[in-house]
Amino acid sequence: MSEPTVASIDFYFDFSSPYSYLLSEQIDQLAARYGRKVRWHPVLLGIIFKATGSAPLTQQYPAKAAYSLHDFARSARFMGIPYRHPDIFPLATQTAARAYYWLHGEDCALARRFAHAVFRALYVDNRDISQADTVLDIAAGLGVDRDRLAAAVQSPEIKERLKQEVDAALPLGMFGAPYVVIDGEAFFGADRLPQIERWLAGGGF
Amino acid sequence: MSEPTVASIDFYFDFSSPYSYLLSEQIDQLAARYGRKVRWHPVLLGIIFKATGSAPLTQQYPAKAAYSLHDFARSARFMGIPYRHPDIFPLATQTAARAYYWLHGEDCALARRFAHAVFRALYVDNRDISQADTVLDIAAGLGVDRDRLAAAVQSPEIKERLKQEVDAALPLGMFGAPYVVIDGEAFFGADRLPQIERWLAGGGF
Repeated sequence: MSEPTVASIDFYFDFSSPYSYLLSEQIDQLAARYGRKVRWHPVLLGIIFKATGSAPLTQQYPAKAAYSLHDFARSARFMGIPYRHPDIFPLATQTAARAYYWLHGEDCALARRFAHAVFRALYVDNRDISQADTVLDIAAGLGVDRDRLAAAVQSPEIKERLKQEVDAALPLGMFGAPYVVIDGEAFFGADRLPQIERWLAGGGF
Repeated sequence: MSEPTVASIDFYFDFSSPYSYLLSEQIDQLAARYGRKVRWHPVLLGIIFKATGSAPLTQQYPAKAAYSLHDFARSARFMGIPYRHPDIFPLATQTAARAYYWLHGEDCALARRFAHAVFRALYVDNRDISQADTVLDIAAGLGVDRDRLAAAVQSPEIKERLKQEVDAALPLGMFGAPYVVIDGEAFFGADRLPQIERWLAGGGF
Protein backbone atom coordinates (compact mmCIF):
# COMPACT_ATOMS: atom_id res chain seq x y z
CA MET A 1 0.00 0.00 0.00
CA SER A 2 1.31 3.42 -0.82
CA GLU A 3 1.39 6.35 1.57
CA PRO A 4 -1.43 8.85 1.10
CA THR A 5 -0.10 11.88 -0.69
CA VAL A 6 -0.58 15.36 0.71
CA ALA A 7 -0.58 18.46 -1.41
CA SER A 8 2.47 20.66 -1.54
CA ILE A 9 2.47 24.20 -0.20
CA ASP A 10 3.06 27.02 -2.69
CA PHE A 11 5.31 29.84 -1.48
CA TYR A 12 5.27 32.93 -3.73
CA PHE A 13 7.84 35.61 -3.03
CA ASP A 14 10.19 38.21 -4.41
CA PHE A 15 13.85 38.13 -3.36
CA SER A 16 13.54 41.85 -2.55
CA SER A 17 10.79 41.28 0.06
CA PRO A 18 12.11 41.35 3.67
CA TYR A 19 9.16 39.42 5.10
CA SER A 20 9.62 36.82 2.34
CA TYR A 21 13.22 36.38 3.51
CA LEU A 22 11.99 35.89 7.09
CA LEU A 23 9.41 33.31 6.04
CA SER A 24 11.92 31.56 3.75
CA GLU A 25 14.08 30.77 6.78
CA GLN A 26 11.30 28.78 8.49
CA ILE A 27 8.66 27.56 6.02
CA ASP A 28 10.41 24.36 4.88
CA GLN A 29 11.03 23.13 8.44
CA LEU A 30 7.47 24.00 9.46
CA ALA A 31 5.99 22.16 6.46
CA ALA A 32 8.22 19.15 7.06
CA ARG A 33 6.86 18.77 10.60
CA TYR A 34 3.47 18.15 8.99
CA GLY A 35 4.73 15.94 6.18
CA ARG A 36 4.46 18.62 3.52
CA LYS A 37 6.82 19.86 0.86
CA VAL A 38 7.05 23.50 -0.23
CA ARG A 39 7.23 24.66 -3.82
CA TRP A 40 9.12 27.95 -4.03
CA HIS A 41 8.01 30.48 -6.65
CA PRO A 42 10.12 33.62 -6.96
CA VAL A 43 8.05 36.23 -8.81
CA LEU A 44 8.36 39.95 -9.55
CA LEU A 45 6.51 42.14 -7.08
CA GLY A 46 6.83 45.14 -9.38
CA ILE A 47 4.46 43.44 -11.82
CA ILE A 48 2.17 42.22 -9.02
CA PHE A 49 2.02 45.74 -7.56
CA LYS A 50 1.27 47.30 -10.94
CA ALA A 51 -1.48 44.78 -11.64
CA THR A 52 -3.15 45.11 -8.23
CA GLY A 53 -2.51 48.78 -7.46
CA SER A 54 -0.15 48.29 -4.52
CA ALA A 55 3.37 49.61 -3.85
CA PRO A 56 6.47 48.65 -1.82
CA LEU A 57 6.02 49.26 1.94
CA THR A 58 8.92 51.68 2.05
CA GLN A 59 7.52 53.68 -0.88
CA GLN A 60 4.05 54.13 0.60
CA TYR A 61 3.23 57.10 2.88
CA PRO A 62 6.01 58.14 5.30
CA ALA A 63 4.44 56.84 8.55
CA LYS A 64 4.03 53.34 7.13
CA ALA A 65 7.47 53.39 5.53
CA ALA A 66 9.10 54.32 8.85
CA TYR A 67 7.16 51.70 10.78
CA SER A 68 7.96 49.02 8.20
CA LEU A 69 11.70 49.66 8.34
CA HIS A 70 11.57 49.31 12.12
CA ASP A 71 9.36 46.23 11.95
CA PHE A 72 11.53 44.36 9.41
CA ALA A 73 14.42 44.30 11.89
CA ARG A 74 12.28 43.75 14.99
CA SER A 75 10.38 40.87 13.37
CA ALA A 76 13.72 39.30 12.40
CA ARG A 77 14.92 39.53 16.02
CA PHE A 78 11.59 38.08 17.17
CA MET A 79 12.04 35.14 14.81
CA GLY A 80 15.75 34.69 15.63
CA ILE A 81 16.91 35.49 12.11
CA PRO A 82 19.85 37.77 11.26
CA TYR A 83 18.81 40.94 9.40
CA ARG A 84 20.55 44.01 8.10
CA HIS A 85 18.43 46.33 5.99
CA PRO A 86 20.09 46.59 2.55
CA ASP A 87 21.50 49.91 1.40
CA ILE A 88 19.92 49.33 -2.03
CA PHE A 89 16.21 48.65 -1.50
CA PRO A 90 13.97 47.68 -3.13
CA LEU A 91 15.87 46.31 -6.10
CA ALA A 92 15.40 44.34 -9.31
CA THR A 93 15.36 40.58 -8.89
CA GLN A 94 14.61 39.14 -12.30
CA THR A 95 18.10 37.70 -12.78
CA ALA A 96 17.96 35.94 -9.41
CA ALA A 97 14.46 34.63 -10.12
CA ARG A 98 15.38 33.38 -13.58
CA ALA A 99 18.50 31.73 -12.18
CA TYR A 100 16.34 29.97 -9.58
CA TYR A 101 14.07 28.44 -12.22
CA TRP A 102 16.94 27.29 -14.40
CA LEU A 103 18.75 25.73 -11.43
CA HIS A 104 15.51 24.07 -10.35
CA GLY A 105 15.39 22.27 -13.70
CA GLU A 106 18.96 21.06 -13.12
CA ASP A 107 18.86 20.18 -9.40
CA CYS A 108 15.98 20.99 -7.04
CA ALA A 109 18.07 20.85 -3.88
CA LEU A 110 20.72 23.10 -5.37
CA ALA A 111 18.04 25.62 -6.38
CA ARG A 112 16.84 25.75 -2.77
CA ARG A 113 20.38 26.35 -1.48
CA PHE A 114 20.80 29.06 -4.11
CA ALA A 115 17.56 30.80 -3.05
CA HIS A 116 18.67 30.85 0.60
CA ALA A 117 22.07 32.17 -0.48
CA VAL A 118 20.49 34.99 -2.52
CA PHE A 119 18.25 36.06 0.37
CA ARG A 120 21.17 36.00 2.82
CA ALA A 121 23.44 37.86 0.41
CA LEU A 122 20.88 40.67 0.37
CA TYR A 123 19.65 40.68 3.98
CA VAL A 124 22.77 39.64 5.86
CA ASP A 125 25.71 40.66 3.66
CA ASN A 126 24.16 43.77 2.02
CA ARG A 127 25.10 42.63 -1.49
CA ASP A 128 23.49 44.13 -4.58
CA ILE A 129 21.65 41.11 -5.98
CA SER A 130 20.17 43.26 -8.75
CA GLN A 131 23.54 42.87 -10.51
CA ALA A 132 23.86 39.78 -12.70
CA ASP A 133 27.49 39.38 -11.61
CA THR A 134 26.44 39.12 -7.97
CA VAL A 135 23.87 36.45 -8.80
CA LEU A 136 26.40 34.51 -10.87
CA ASP A 137 28.99 34.79 -8.08
CA ILE A 138 26.51 33.40 -5.55
CA ALA A 139 25.69 30.46 -7.82
CA ALA A 140 29.35 29.83 -8.62
CA GLY A 141 30.02 29.67 -4.88
CA LEU A 142 27.62 26.71 -4.79
CA GLY A 143 29.46 24.92 -7.59
CA VAL A 144 27.28 26.08 -10.50
CA ASP A 145 28.91 26.56 -13.91
CA ARG A 146 28.93 30.32 -14.17
CA ASP A 147 28.95 30.50 -17.98
CA ARG A 148 26.06 28.08 -18.40
CA LEU A 149 23.99 30.03 -15.88
CA ALA A 150 24.89 33.37 -17.51
CA ALA A 151 23.53 32.05 -20.81
CA ALA A 152 20.47 30.44 -19.19
CA VAL A 153 19.22 33.64 -17.50
CA GLN A 154 19.19 35.29 -20.94
CA SER A 155 17.34 32.45 -22.66
CA PRO A 156 13.80 33.00 -23.94
CA GLU A 157 12.65 29.79 -22.23
CA ILE A 158 13.68 30.96 -18.76
CA LYS A 159 12.31 34.47 -19.30
CA GLU A 160 9.02 32.90 -20.34
CA ARG A 161 9.04 30.60 -17.30
CA LEU A 162 9.33 33.56 -14.93
CA LYS A 163 6.56 35.38 -16.78
CA GLN A 164 4.32 32.32 -16.44
CA GLU A 165 4.97 32.15 -12.69
CA VAL A 166 3.98 35.80 -12.25
CA ASP A 167 0.89 35.25 -14.39
CA ALA A 168 -0.05 32.26 -12.23
CA ALA A 169 0.29 34.21 -8.97
CA LEU A 170 -2.22 36.92 -9.82
CA PRO A 171 -5.31 34.67 -10.14
CA LEU A 172 -4.41 33.24 -6.72
CA GLY A 173 -5.09 36.70 -5.28
CA MET A 174 -1.46 37.62 -4.66
CA PHE A 175 -1.00 41.33 -3.97
CA GLY A 176 2.16 41.30 -1.84
CA ALA A 177 4.79 38.91 -0.51
CA PRO A 178 5.23 36.44 1.02
CA TYR A 179 2.03 34.80 -0.20
CA VAL A 180 1.55 31.16 0.80
CA VAL A 181 -1.22 28.95 -0.58
CA ILE A 182 -2.16 25.70 1.19
CA ASP A 183 -5.08 23.60 -0.02
CA GLY A 184 -6.51 26.70 -1.74
CA GLU A 185 -6.18 28.83 1.42
CA ALA A 186 -4.00 31.95 1.07
CA PHE A 187 -1.85 33.45 3.82
CA PHE A 188 -0.13 36.82 3.35
CA GLY A 189 2.89 37.84 5.42
CA ALA A 190 5.55 36.22 7.59
CA ASP A 191 3.33 37.06 10.58
CA ARG A 192 0.82 34.44 9.39
CA LEU A 193 3.23 31.58 10.21
CA PRO A 194 1.26 30.70 13.39
CA GLN A 195 -1.96 30.50 11.34
CA ILE A 196 -0.16 28.42 8.70
CA GLU A 197 0.95 26.02 11.42
CA ARG A 198 -2.62 25.77 12.80
CA TRP A 199 -3.89 25.08 9.28
CA LEU A 200 -1.30 22.35 8.71
CA ALA A 201 -2.00 20.80 12.10
CA GLY A 202 -5.76 20.77 11.89
CA GLY A 203 -6.73 20.71 8.26
CA GLY A 204 -8.36 24.09 8.46
CA PHE A 205 -9.84 26.12 11.28
CA MET B 1 8.91 50.61 50.51
CA SER B 2 6.62 51.18 47.59
CA GLU B 3 6.31 48.89 44.58
CA PRO B 4 8.20 50.04 41.52
CA THR B 5 5.77 51.54 39.06
CA VAL B 6 5.67 50.36 35.48
CA ALA B 7 4.42 52.45 32.60
CA SER B 8 0.98 51.86 31.16
CA ILE B 9 0.45 50.60 27.65
CA ASP B 10 -1.35 52.91 25.19
CA PHE B 11 -3.86 51.20 22.89
CA TYR B 12 -5.07 53.42 20.03
CA PHE B 13 -7.98 52.14 17.97
CA ASP B 14 -11.14 52.94 16.08
CA PHE B 15 -14.33 51.07 16.93
CA SER B 16 -14.74 50.37 13.20
CA SER B 17 -11.42 48.49 12.94
CA PRO B 18 -11.84 44.67 12.96
CA TYR B 19 -8.28 43.96 14.06
CA SER B 20 -8.73 46.51 16.87
CA TYR B 21 -11.74 44.52 18.06
CA LEU B 22 -9.66 41.33 18.03
CA LEU B 23 -6.84 42.94 20.00
CA SER B 24 -9.31 44.57 22.43
CA GLU B 25 -10.46 41.10 23.51
CA GLN B 26 -6.98 40.10 24.67
CA ILE B 27 -4.76 43.11 25.42
CA ASP B 28 -5.90 43.78 29.00
CA GLN B 29 -5.40 40.17 30.11
CA LEU B 30 -2.01 40.02 28.37
CA ALA B 31 -0.87 43.26 30.01
CA ALA B 32 -2.12 42.14 33.41
CA ARG B 33 0.06 39.02 33.26
CA TYR B 34 3.05 41.38 33.17
CA GLY B 35 1.74 43.80 35.80
CA ARG B 36 0.75 46.45 33.29
CA LYS B 37 -2.38 48.52 32.79
CA VAL B 38 -3.71 49.53 29.38
CA ARG B 39 -4.98 53.00 28.52
CA TRP B 40 -7.59 52.76 25.77
CA HIS B 41 -7.73 55.59 23.23
CA PRO B 42 -10.56 55.42 20.69
CA VAL B 43 -9.66 57.72 17.78
CA LEU B 44 -11.01 58.40 14.29
CA LEU B 45 -9.22 56.44 11.58
CA GLY B 46 -10.76 58.63 8.88
CA ILE B 47 -8.67 61.55 10.14
CA ILE B 48 -5.59 59.36 10.62
CA PHE B 49 -5.95 58.00 7.08
CA LYS B 50 -6.38 61.46 5.60
CA ALA B 51 -3.35 62.79 7.49
CA THR B 52 -1.08 59.87 6.56
CA GLY B 53 -2.34 58.98 3.10
CA SER B 54 -3.80 55.57 3.92
CA ALA B 55 -7.28 54.09 3.41
CA PRO B 56 -9.51 51.37 4.92
CA LEU B 57 -8.37 47.84 3.99
CA THR B 58 -11.68 47.05 2.31
CA GLN B 59 -11.48 50.23 0.22
CA GLN B 60 -8.00 49.62 -1.09
CA TYR B 61 -7.40 47.65 -4.32
CA PRO B 62 -9.70 44.64 -4.85
CA ALA B 63 -7.19 41.85 -4.17
CA LYS B 64 -6.29 43.31 -0.77
CA ALA B 65 -9.92 44.03 0.10
CA ALA B 66 -10.92 40.43 -0.65
CA TYR B 67 -8.01 39.00 1.33
CA SER B 68 -8.73 41.30 4.28
CA LEU B 69 -12.38 40.27 4.51
CA HIS B 70 -11.29 36.63 4.57
CA ASP B 71 -8.52 37.30 7.07
CA PHE B 72 -10.69 39.24 9.56
CA ALA B 73 -12.85 36.15 10.13
CA ARG B 74 -9.99 33.64 9.97
CA SER B 75 -7.88 35.64 12.42
CA ALA B 76 -10.87 35.77 14.77
CA ARG B 77 -11.23 31.98 14.60
CA PHE B 78 -7.49 31.64 15.17
CA MET B 79 -7.76 33.80 18.30
CA GLY B 80 -10.96 32.11 19.51
CA ILE B 81 -13.05 35.28 19.23
CA PRO B 82 -16.57 35.42 17.74
CA TYR B 83 -16.76 37.49 14.54
CA ARG B 84 -19.44 38.36 12.03
CA HIS B 85 -18.47 40.94 9.44
CA PRO B 86 -20.89 43.88 9.78
CA ASP B 87 -23.25 44.70 6.96
CA ILE B 88 -22.42 48.39 7.37
CA PHE B 89 -18.64 48.74 7.15
CA PRO B 90 -16.66 50.86 7.68
CA LEU B 91 -18.83 53.29 9.63
CA ALA B 92 -18.65 56.52 11.63
CA THR B 93 -17.60 56.09 15.25
CA GLN B 94 -17.34 59.58 16.69
CA THR B 95 -20.40 59.20 18.94
CA ALA B 96 -19.08 55.95 20.39
CA ALA B 97 -15.62 57.45 20.91
CA ARG B 98 -16.99 60.59 22.55
CA ALA B 99 -19.22 58.48 24.79
CA TYR B 100 -16.17 56.47 25.83
CA TYR B 101 -14.25 59.55 26.95
CA TRP B 102 -17.19 60.98 28.88
CA LEU B 103 -17.83 57.66 30.60
CA HIS B 104 -14.14 57.36 31.42
CA GLY B 105 -14.36 60.59 33.33
CA GLU B 106 -17.30 59.19 35.29
CA ASP B 107 -16.16 55.61 35.90
CA CYS B 108 -13.08 54.01 34.30
CA ALA B 109 -14.30 50.43 34.71
CA LEU B 110 -17.69 51.27 33.24
CA ALA B 111 -16.00 52.91 30.25
CA ARG B 112 -14.08 49.70 29.62
CA ARG B 113 -17.25 47.59 29.78
CA PHE B 114 -18.89 50.07 27.39
CA ALA B 115 -16.02 49.82 24.91
CA HIS B 116 -16.24 46.03 24.86
CA ALA B 117 -20.01 46.27 24.43
CA VAL B 118 -19.66 48.64 21.46
CA PHE B 119 -17.13 46.38 19.73
CA ARG B 120 -19.31 43.31 20.30
CA ALA B 121 -22.46 45.12 19.17
CA LEU B 122 -20.72 45.78 15.85
CA TYR B 123 -18.73 42.56 15.33
CA VAL B 124 -21.00 39.99 16.94
CA ASP B 125 -24.51 41.44 16.75
CA ASN B 126 -24.17 43.40 13.49
CA ARG B 127 -25.60 46.59 15.02
CA ASP B 128 -25.14 49.99 13.39
CA ILE B 129 -23.01 51.77 16.00
CA SER B 130 -22.76 54.84 13.75
CA GLN B 131 -26.24 55.72 15.02
CA ALA B 132 -26.32 57.76 18.24
CA ASP B 133 -29.40 55.84 19.39
CA THR B 134 -27.51 52.56 19.17
CA VAL B 135 -24.63 53.96 21.23
CA LEU B 136 -27.03 55.35 23.82
CA ASP B 137 -28.90 52.02 23.97
CA ILE B 138 -25.65 50.15 24.59
CA ALA B 139 -24.70 52.54 27.40
CA ALA B 140 -28.19 52.44 28.92
CA GLY B 141 -27.93 48.67 28.99
CA LEU B 142 -24.92 49.10 31.28
CA GLY B 143 -26.87 51.39 33.62
CA VAL B 144 -25.75 54.72 32.19
CA ASP B 145 -28.19 57.65 32.33
CA ARG B 146 -29.17 57.92 28.68
CA ASP B 147 -30.10 61.62 28.74
CA ARG B 148 -26.91 62.71 30.46
CA LEU B 149 -24.84 60.75 27.93
CA ALA B 150 -26.86 62.15 25.00
CA ALA B 151 -26.01 65.66 26.18
CA ALA B 152 -22.39 64.82 26.93
CA VAL B 153 -21.56 63.51 23.44
CA GLN B 154 -22.70 66.86 22.02
CA SER B 155 -20.67 68.94 24.47
CA PRO B 156 -17.76 71.04 23.20
CA GLU B 157 -15.52 69.62 25.94
CA ILE B 158 -15.98 66.02 24.82
CA LYS B 159 -15.65 66.89 21.14
CA GLU B 160 -12.40 68.67 21.96
CA ARG B 161 -11.18 65.71 24.01
CA LEU B 162 -11.62 63.35 21.06
CA LYS B 163 -9.87 65.81 18.77
CA GLN B 164 -6.93 65.98 21.20
CA GLU B 165 -6.66 62.20 21.28
CA VAL B 166 -6.50 62.02 17.48
CA ASP B 167 -3.94 64.83 17.44
CA ALA B 168 -1.85 62.94 19.99
CA ALA B 169 -1.89 59.71 17.98
CA LEU B 170 -0.38 61.15 14.81
CA PRO B 171 3.01 62.16 16.31
CA LEU B 172 3.29 58.63 17.70
CA GLY B 173 3.45 57.41 14.10
CA MET B 174 -0.05 55.96 13.99
CA PHE B 175 -1.21 55.20 10.44
CA GLY B 176 -3.71 52.39 11.08
CA ALA B 177 -5.32 50.45 13.91
CA PRO B 178 -4.80 48.84 16.31
CA TYR B 179 -1.66 50.77 17.26
CA VAL B 180 -0.11 49.89 20.62
CA VAL B 181 2.71 51.88 22.20
CA ILE B 182 4.78 50.36 25.04
CA ASP B 183 7.76 52.21 26.48
CA GLY B 184 7.98 54.24 23.26
CA GLU B 185 7.87 51.11 21.05
CA ALA B 186 5.00 50.96 18.55
CA PHE B 187 3.24 47.78 17.42
CA PHE B 188 0.71 47.84 14.56
CA GLY B 189 -1.90 45.13 14.14
CA ALA B 190 -3.54 42.37 16.19
CA ASP B 191 -0.97 40.01 14.68
CA ARG B 192 1.75 41.74 16.72
CA LEU B 193 0.36 40.34 20.01
CA PRO B 194 3.15 37.72 20.20
CA GLN B 195 5.76 40.47 19.77
CA ILE B 196 3.96 42.61 22.38
CA GLU B 197 4.13 39.68 24.80
CA ARG B 198 7.84 39.18 24.14
CA TRP B 199 8.41 42.90 24.73
CA LEU B 200 6.50 42.82 28.02
CA ALA B 201 8.30 39.67 29.15
CA GLY B 202 11.80 40.75 28.32
CA GLY B 203 11.91 44.50 28.38
CA GLY B 204 12.65 44.74 24.71
CA PHE B 205 14.23 42.37 22.21
